[in-house]
Amino acid sequence: MTEQKFKPGKGIGQTVGVALLGMGTVGAEVLRLLEERSDEFASRIGGPLEVRGIAVSNLSKPRPGVDPEKLTDDALSLVARDDIDLVIEVIGGIDYPREVVLAALRAGKSVVTANKALIAAHADELSAAADESGVDLFFEAAVAAAIPVVGPLRRSLAGDKVNQVMGIVNGTTNFILDAMYTRGASYDEMLAEATELGYAEADPSADVDGFDAASKAAILASLAFHTRVSGEDVHTEGIRDITVADIEAAKAANSTIKLLAICERLVDEEGKESVSASVYPALIPSSHPLSSVSESYNAVFVEAESAGRLMFYGNGAGGGPTASAVLGDVVAVARNIVLGGRGPGESTYASLPIANFGDVSTRYHVDMQVDDRLGVLAEVASVFSEQGVSLKTVRQEGLNDGARLVVITHSAKEKNLEDTVAKLKDLDAVKAIDSVIRMEG
Amino acid sequence: MTEQKFKPGKGIGQTVGVALLGMGTVGAEVLRLLEERSDEFASRIGGPLEVRGIAVSNLSKPRPGVDPEKLTDDALSLVARDDIDLVIEVIGGIDYPREVVLAALRAGKSVVTANKALIAAHADELSAAADESGVDLFFEAAVAAAIPVVGPLRRSLAGDKVNQVMGIVNGTTNFILDAMYTRGASYDEMLAEATELGYAEADPSADVDGFDAASKAAILASLAFHTRVSGEDVHTEGIRDITVADIEAAKAANSTIKLLAICERLVDEEGKESVSASVYPALIPSSHPLSSVSESYNAVFVEAESAGRLMFYGNGAGGGPTASAVLGDVVAVARNIVLGGRGPGESTYASLPIANFGDVSTRYHVDMQVDDRLGVLAEVASVFSEQGVSLKTVRQEGLNDGARLVVITHSAKEKNLEDTVAKLKDLDAVKAIDSVIRMEG
Repeated sequence: MTEQKFKPGKGIGQTVGVALLGMGTVGAEVLRLLEERSDEFASRIGGPLEVRGIAVSNLSKPRPGVDPEKLTDDALSLVARDDIDLVIEVIGGIDYPREVVLAALRAGKSVVTANKALIAAHADELSAAADESGVDLFFEAAVAAAIPVVGPLRRSLAGDKVNQVMGIVNGTTNFILDAMYTRGASYDEMLAEATELGYAEADPSADVDGFDAASKAAILASLAFHTRVSGEDVHTEGIRDITVADIEAAKAANSTIKLLAICERLVDEEGKESVSASVYPALIPSSHPLSSVSESYNAVFVEAESAGRLMFYGNGAGGGPTASAVLGDVVAVARNIVLGGRGPGESTYASLPIANFGDVSTRYHVDMQVDDRLGVLAEVASVFSEQGVSLKTVRQEGLNDGARLVVITHSAKEKNLEDTVAKLKDLDAVKAIDSVIRMEG
Repeated sequence: MTEQKFKPGKGIGQTVGVALLGMGTVGAEVLRLLEERSDEFASRIGGPLEVRGIAVSNLSKPRPGVDPEKLTDDALSLVARDDIDLVIEVIGGIDYPREVVLAALRAGKSVVTANKALIAAHADELSAAADESGVDLFFEAAVAAAIPVVGPLRRSLAGDKVNQVMGIVNGTTNFILDAMYTRGASYDEMLAEATELGYAEADPSADVDGFDAASKAAILASLAFHTRVSGEDVHTEGIRDITVADIEAAKAANSTIKLLAICERLVDEEGKESVSASVYPALIPSSHPLSSVSESYNAVFVEAESAGRLMFYGNGAGGGPTASAVLGDVVAVARNIVLGGRGPGESTYASLPIANFGDVSTRYHVDMQVDDRLGVLAEVASVFSEQGVSLKTVRQEGLNDGARLVVITHSAKEKNLEDTVAKLKDLDAVKAIDSVIRMEG
């Protein structure tokens, strides 16, 4: 840890000048609540907040109730102004907010952002700039909106050793998977409905391909393991390929399918630690607390050495919940500006290596159609054992003109499981592999 | 808010001297983990922690692995020592820890405590002393052990307006009620089992009479509503009187019975706000997230204006989880000692009045035996309506030589509900009232 510095407090009763970048759903709600709760915030902070400038991309759009004097399309000049102490970034995107947030931090302004993609991609550079200027960079809203996750990992669990963080951190995909499960509908039908309801964007890729969850997994893993994990380090699979057969397999296994962000501390045979962060759809048993997270709700499950199993649950998206998380950070940061002091910043002292995804262990649930003849089971089982994958349960049942074989493996390395499935496909006795899906929890 | 001050940081790399008060289950685990995780903690803090003294009540008890030089039975002298920066209080009780913690704070030492009874009774005095010296007084472990609740209410939700906090915050009573529900056993049987398993103390009063939960309710209400609420302000009922008939009534209503700590912001007809904190056993519907909290687990449900509904779940007691919460605070406080700065303290600016329990609104579930004759239902219904209590559902069924009447009310004031039940008892037509229990969620 390098020498830490922070600016002296402005003093009790002094006004904190705020720049708001972005006036979408979240920005407008943040602005409304800064007005509505101004007295409470002043009491909690020790001085009033004043929004002195609002950066928007389109100045000609009518914005009723907003003082036009405050609007600007020049965010860079706004954050450099002497009367701005605190910058709230809710623009979205990566390159442009990166430029503006860096400029703000370098000019000695504290920043609160809800931008998960920005943090997942550039936390290193941004944290260094915040440290350099002795200001705060807070981003509770970047993961699971109002559900406190960043704070608990950064502060409450700072005395513990976190071994696993597993979360449902994307509401859109949870809505789709939950609806497929409860209504037996297909992925395409439910994506169409999610789009109609406004849960999914016109281009749903960030959600359904897992990129949004991957950014959050990177942030969670960085905090949990005191190690820099960026979005690129996260093995990411989405839910586009989840079929009705997968859902049926889940039901038969008394499980549900959830898109999970999974961050784990791995320990090899020699006791060497590494970390892994990945996003993929997986079966979790109905008895696991995450299985009952329905609709567009989010939940994050944490396992720490002393604390045991914890779960945080709530609304993980939307204007209100995101604004709540942004404003919680704003109060904390403004308090530091008034009183002096600084919150805990990034801590990456552990710098554990990132494991190859092939070396991460998991369990597989494989549902296949095989010939119904003597010796097939032995043939299939030997493919697993040749790859060093041991079987937990095998269930065989008659099918029209063959047999269905459902295999659940014990925990084994990804690369061995992958090789096993490839070899199964080559077997003459295997007519089709209907579903291959990981199991967690 | 008065002028806030804090001591300058000792500087990166400087050692933080720690005094540990108490060597029970939690104290021993804290000591073990301070040793085991010392390198990680030093990295997270910016300097090493060193336990320089341990206060115990019985010096002659053998304590293997503990340097006898560090032991003392004079806690007051220990906390006054110049080489002590941070005091961890895990003694329990009220009067003696109050004296020692006050002395520590007044001597400029930051304090981390797990003592809910102490905080619920003396937060005012202790916070004032911490403010006066510019040091931290942290107590995450006082509510629900390792489940982050104090931190989220104090920090993450500081930008929101909390309207309700409802929690299962006592593991012993949850174990007893859960076992009564799932096994159909009586209170006495399950208390005996809880005592045998070590969940309940020889004198179980603090748990089963609701006092432990009341301390936690006071702490939660104070944080949520920025208003001083002490243990004495909490209307408290325990679980001793919960009968098998109550459990049966719960099952019939598709609900469970939980001992709840309920903190609410009330708004009267004129818009005037007040707060209420209470502890009592209540029915909650099976669809509510709190209903599935089983065994000795804890969970806290929060409803805030912007964030919506949040839930925090985990182990609410035990050496490991409590040590996790204590150590999270220790890292935060030690970081402030090394780097300078101070965490958010008590904030009671709102100072809302505490509502009379009689003015708090709730719903009742009343299960009674009545005469099976014409006009009885009308007689019973008119008692409710005379008190201004409207009925949501009424279910009547035949009984051996009479009828059973199950009434669920709409929300009404406690005093009116209480009067109603008193008047029902006076009715000739009412032969027995088998169960009167509140409904929440």
